[in-house]
Amino acid sequence: MRDPASSSLPAAERTVFFVSDGTGITAETFGHSVLTQFELRFKQIRLPFIDTLEKAYDAVRRINESCVQDGKRPIVFSTLVKADLSAVVRRSSGMHMDLIHTFVEPLEQELGIKSSHTIGRSHNIADSDEYKNRIEAINFSLAHDDGQSDKNLALADVILVGVSRSGKTPTSLYLAMQYGIKAANYPLIPEDFQRGKLPGTLAQYKNKIFGLSIAPERLAEVRNERRPGSKYAALENCRYEINEAETMMRREGIRWMSSTTKSIEEIAATILQEIRLERHSY
Amino acid sequence: MRDPASSSLPAAERTVFFVSDGTGITAETFGHSVLTQFELRFKQIRLPFIDTLEKAYDAVRRINESCVQDGKRPIVFSTLVKADLSAVVRRSSGMHMDLIHTFVEPLEQELGIKSSHTIGRSHNIADSDEYKNRIEAINFSLAHDDGQSDKNLALADVILVGVSRSGKTPTSLYLAMQYGIKAANYPLIPEDFQRGKLPGTLAQYKNKIFGLSIAPERLAEVRNERRPGSKYAALENCRYEINEAETMMRREGIRWMSSTTKSIEEIAATILQEIRLERHSY
Repeated sequence: MRDPASSSLPAAERTVFFVSDGTGITAETFGHSVLTQFELRFKQIRLPFIDTLEKAYDAVRRINESCVQDGKRPIVFSTLVKADLSAVVRRSSGMHMDLIHTFVEPLEQELGIKSSHTIGRSHNIADSDEYKNRIEAINFSLAHDDGQSDKNLALADVILVGVSRSGKTPTSLYLAMQYGIKAANYPLIPEDFQRGKLPGTLAQYKNKIFGLSIAPERLAEVRNERRPGSKYAALENCRYEINEAETMMRREGIRWMSSTTKSIEEIAATILQEIRLERHSY
Repeated sequence: MRDPASSSLPAAERTVFFVSDGTGITAETFGHSVLTQFELRFKQIRLPFIDTLEKAYDAVRRINESCVQDGKRPIVFSTLVKADLSAVVRRSSGMHMDLIHTFVEPLEQELGIKSSHTIGRSHNIADSDEYKNRIEAINFSLAHDDGQSDKNLALADVILVGVSRSGKTPTSLYLAMQYGIKAANYPLIPEDFQRGKLPGTLAQYKNKIFGLSIAPERLAEVRNERRPGSKYAALENCRYEINEAETMMRREGIRWMSSTTKSIEEIAATILQEIRLERHSY
């Protein structure tokens, strides 16, 4: 959806504007979560930093032009806080989806406080402890990618295991970046299968190990992109490794899931659910 | 907000539920974008896979319990599609924020198609071209982290440069993961300053180079966490490197920004804006 390149979809059906007095990230994140519900291509245009009347009129002009060009009214996700700017943009020919007025205002009433948007303060994410946790988690996950380091494994929130190309690296980075979770990952390799044991350093951390498996056919496909025609990528070898890995995980009592048809987001959601990282409020 | 650990905030003020018939990712992403507007701690509980009446009643029970415990009604972000399930959960004592009915239904009318949520199909992200792009971009960015490889730099969408610890790595990974952008990054090191030139391989890609700088004081702080008391971390050295790096970027006509008080999200938004990666629809 963000990159509407999927070949099965028709040409861009509709133009979407994200209008904001700040970076536009809120309008965009929010808009994306709604638009992903539709199997359509959207041409997406961000109009950040709309913080003067002049810029607001300029935004309206762009929205109206696109309406004429497309022959269809654009969809406008807006997080404009100031009433005068919002009133200007609302008069465009777009379909106006107003995050602030629809959800933030009722919540302000409910919570009895003003939102940072309303009081015009950019919530300084970069200074928060949460943000520092995330950066720390990213560094941790990078340093502990692919079994690179046994150091500080005790600090890991989760240790992902699985055969090469089962999805461990992107999942670890996503967990770190999105949730501030220190996610190490460790490959299961043929030597482990021959010894019939988990890599030695992992045994003591069994309660935070989570396994990823994948259909051998899909694994062969992914590995062939990387090393075409190799033994590593051969279907028979993939079948062997997956079978051994799943047998080992069952024997060791390790929770695991298949990543075959799952996105990183879905894998991460399941891991959070399974591992129950309470201190991260999940 | 996701990890409500910021020491300046009071204890969890309100419980928030994310109720979904799927993974809950949409409800959660959406809810987060709204809740980040409030400087409050929220206790967050995900209730995914609520796809039967029994589970819906169970969700209501949990919401009501939390209401009694907190003495305040919880906030419920819901993406339940089926009318019968939605009707059950709506009767809880929580404050109901319904993504589907509020935005998706009007959009269905506007676009003249049903949403994937409504037709009960889990949009199989993992199979889309967009998703494959993202995974490819993550692999690319990892392989091109910290000047590790000059190979295929021609394929990079953007090449970040800056002194060590100026924020290049997390920004590159965020651009890849969130937007499917192939982001390489290259450190500017004292040898480059002595030669008074950009690293040789980069000269031909100047149009896609973007620089990150950072306040010397902040840099010294970050570096001291990593190598306490080193020359590398000394404020004087940080001042020297930053001054040289900024002089070089100005001389070479490279666009750059300071990452000092910016979050990864804000840095990425600015880079997208500056580089105008049209083929990614930004």
